[in-house]
Amino acid sequence: MEETCAGHIMLQEIREQPAAITRLIAAERERVWQMSTRWHQAPPRFIVLAARGTSDHAALYAKYLFEIQNGIPVVLAAPSVAGIYRARVKMDGGLVIGISQSGKAADVIAVLKQAREEGADTLAITNVATSPLADAADHLIELHAAPEVAVAATKTFSSTMAALLLLSAAMSRSQHLSAGLERLPALLEDVLRHEEAIRAKVERFRYLTDCVLLGRGYNMATAYELGLKLRETCYLRALPFATPDFVHGPIAILEEGLPVFAIANQGPTFPSVLDVIVQSKARGAEVMVIGNAEEALQMADIAFPINRGQEVPEELSPFPTIVAGQLLAQRLSVLKGIDPDQPRGLNKVTITR
Amino acid sequence: MEETCAGHIMLQEIREQPAAITRLIAAERERVWQMSTRWHQAPPRFIVLAARGTSDHAALYAKYLFEIQNGIPVVLAAPSVAGIYRARVKMDGGLVIGISQSGKAADVIAVLKQAREEGADTLAITNVATSPLADAADHLIELHAAPEVAVAATKTFSSTMAALLLLSAAMSRSQHLSAGLERLPALLEDVLRHEEAIRAKVERFRYLTDCVLLGRGYNMATAYELGLKLRETCYLRALPFATPDFVHGPIAILEEGLPVFAIANQGPTFPSVLDVIVQSKARGAEVMVIGNAEEALQMADIAFPINRGQEVPEELSPFPTIVAGQLLAQRLSVLKGIDPDQPRGLNKVTITR
Repeated sequence: MEETCAGHIMLQEIREQPAAITRLIAAERERVWQMSTRWHQAPPRFIVLAARGTSDHAALYAKYLFEIQNGIPVVLAAPSVAGIYRARVKMDGGLVIGISQSGKAADVIAVLKQAREEGADTLAITNVATSPLADAADHLIELHAAPEVAVAATKTFSSTMAALLLLSAAMSRSQHLSAGLERLPALLEDVLRHEEAIRAKVERFRYLTDCVLLGRGYNMATAYELGLKLRETCYLRALPFATPDFVHGPIAILEEGLPVFAIANQGPTFPSVLDVIVQSKARGAEVMVIGNAEEALQMADIAFPINRGQEVPEELSPFPTIVAGQLLAQRLSVLKGIDPDQPRGLNKVTITR
Repeated sequence: MEETCAGHIMLQEIREQPAAITRLIAAERERVWQMSTRWHQAPPRFIVLAARGTSDHAALYAKYLFEIQNGIPVVLAAPSVAGIYRARVKMDGGLVIGISQSGKAADVIAVLKQAREEGADTLAITNVATSPLADAADHLIELHAAPEVAVAATKTFSSTMAALLLLSAAMSRSQHLSAGLERLPALLEDVLRHEEAIRAKVERFRYLTDCVLLGRGYNMATAYELGLKLRETCYLRALPFATPDFVHGPIAILEEGLPVFAIANQGPTFPSVLDVIVQSKARGAEVMVIGNAEEALQMADIAFPINRGQEVPEELSPFPTIVAGQLLAQRLSVLKGIDPDQPRGLNKVTITR
């Protein structure tokens, strides 16, 4: 069933994701491989990622990627350090990556400009190759996601993560990661084939106002990004946590009626996530599970299974998982009578200094 | 008026903070100054801070401190990278700081152990000098805060921030920061003298269930830590945001009845915070202001003024501000019939792997 009015643009952009990533790989793979030769031979001492909002969630994904796969420490920049405090941070020997789909984020541009003056290598990741962000950096990865029109970012999130996965693969010359990248379009197509099954389960949440989201490791980014989608398109008071931080205090807020959305995928972090699912159910919370981990799906009150029957390395799992989350948020937004293409009080480009 | 039952321990520990910081300075100042000689002469290429929960909020404060005051890039460690993914991150040339009041946080200890093997300098900050965390590091700063008994951490938070401020001052040999450190006990005493005035304003929030907290720069940590206190002692669904991240989407959740607690102190970030206060009021939110910035206090629906009539450098402002926030959380907890010394489902020491 097609939506033809509210939320139609967001839904279209969700569906475009396999094609967008296919274009990114075709256009940028060789270039990024060549650009990375120097970083393969002499890895940067550290990587700085500067971003805001959805792009910052892609950066959080990449923090795990570069630390685990490349062994390089990652600084998630506090953009105000350069933009507001005007402080100079020693960045020589580092690789500084600025991320902004529009390429207009003033505080991210400030970080890149300062890094360039400090003698760091600089790289822009953006959907707009002619943007000020691209101008401020030595290197560029263009997303090739085609213009994103809905206020809630969807395809630029997965394309940004894919660009960072491509960079991580190129810097480590990893065949494993490179093969993973190639699998992404098919993994996302698989989720989109189950679009109706996902949408059918959303009705239940029509009057939901608050929720907790849980993830860990690579999928902390998934929980944070789904939390943002639910806040901006459904006006939910959505509280995302890493599972260990959740048991360090916030778990006290659990009570019947406050549901938990747990991102649960196979991989090293799964036992930690499963443990918190068990604890949450014991406190009477309704638990939704989104992911590919059968054991967790079977414990769920409502399960959103993904890529069933496939082995998916944990570093790929945020991609299909967030697509399911985006479909959930888009559907819930429309059910609540909101237009997710244009939520109240938001503009597509947010300039912060 | 003294509390003699529920919440008495937490209140006592809040009141001990000036004395605890005085002890820390007396016991550790010379040692830290000497320990830091090498880092003053040859600054580490980067600093890694590993922590969980409240200690991680002190680390967030220190990220701004070391980047702005010392010009050193700061990595906030994702403890699962070492503890769960067993990945090796290249940390030579860096200073790796593990923070845990109990000294028992397994994942933080894992980061220190790996860093030591990698040849990085390692430092433990803990309230327990005989703990496994202290054993895992080359250097130690002991908090001297005396045992903390209430589940909700209060004095160890401010003492940890003070230890990090001491380290930042010693590494930069900054007289300005050093003089600031000396002022802390008096600034906190000043807040505690207004304890009754703060408590009197809390009645209004007896039936509050949800709130937004806003801060920026040094005071992002304050907003995050107050959010955690309100979740763990008052069971509030408290959503903390950096002001620029809030306008990137979450601002859509604002509506009448969802109040905003804004941390507003004088300093470079104040215009950004003021701007979001104005936007929040325009959307009908009730706005509480905690801080020393008169212009914001005068716009507030309920004002919690701090250190009135004193010039407080922004890097010191999180200390008095969180003390006011702790008093607010403790009082609200008791008003709600909760015992903040022992909230449901929490233990004092949380071990995560």
